[in-house]
Amino acid sequence: MDEVPGALGTSAGLALRLGQTVFSTASLLFMCLDVEFYSYTAFCYLVTVMGLIIPWSITLLVVDAYSVFVKCLVHQPRMILIIFFGDMVLSYLSLAAACSTASVTDLLLNAGASFCPVKLCSRYQLSAAMAFLSWFLSLASSLFNLWLLPSL
Amino acid sequence: MDEVPGALGTSAGLALRLGQTVFSTASLLFMCLDVEFYSYTAFCYLVTVMGLIIPWSITLLVVDAYSVFVKCLVHQPRMILIIFFGDMVLSYLSLAAACSTASVTDLLLNAGASFCPVKLCSRYQLSAAMAFLSWFLSLASSLFNLWLLPSL
Repeated sequence: MDEVPGALGTSAGLALRLGQTVFSTASLLFMCLDVEFYSYTAFCYLVTVMGLIIPWSITLLVVDAYSVFVKCLVHQPRMILIIFFGDMVLSYLSLAAACSTASVTDLLLNAGASFCPVKLCSRYQLSAAMAFLSWFLSLASSLFNLWLLPSL
Repeated sequence: MDEVPGALGTSAGLALRLGQTVFSTASLLFMCLDVEFYSYTAFCYLVTVMGLIIPWSITLLVVDAYSVFVKCLVHQPRMILIIFFGDMVLSYLSLAAACSTASVTDLLLNAGASFCPVKLCSRYQLSAAMAFLSWFLSLASSLFNLWLLPSL
């Protein structure tokens, strides 16, 4: 079996999972800490989706770390397929959350400082940016695992 | 070569393309006709994305119709791969547009009738719903073509 860099059990895959974990946690923290996010539907949705992505990323981070540092993992086609579909679904969800957050923040910024103080709005923007980065890494993981699939 | 229902050149594929064309055109018309959509970034984005999806769907609708009604089409792996990636990219774009539109409309509805008259807001909602349906059909087309790929 040939190694696909970025797929499950490689060091590039480990780096991708680490990035997903960091960015999704950052997005959640920027949105949640000290901010009344639950007054907007889009922000609640972002928090929900990030709450799904973080455990998924951490689980696969642990699997990758085990595989890289301890011993080689046996690739089963069924497992790779499940991980591919999971990554794809989560990447769609995180893109949707990032876009909703970005568009609502843009609208609030245009509405003026009475609706959204500058400091608060910049935190919403940072949260949306982190969610976009997390989406990009999920998509990359999903495509690398798809690439690995026919060789199994 | 086995036939995958819903892939390029089948009657189910023709139905999927027809649905995409109808829903994306409906989404564009609900947003554009008699509505000042260009005052919101999210709505401009929806119009741009629908302007990309409509020619793509119509082109593949013509290819499918030719293949179903006139003669069988020769499947080339390279062509199927291009169509798969095109569908996937467009499905991500249309999901992003649908989510942005839906969240902005939701915010405007909550802000009250002075920001968004009820008749106008229901048109935005319809436009977002049509964009979601168009996303769903693009995703289905993309997955069916992906399924066809290994058998070529």
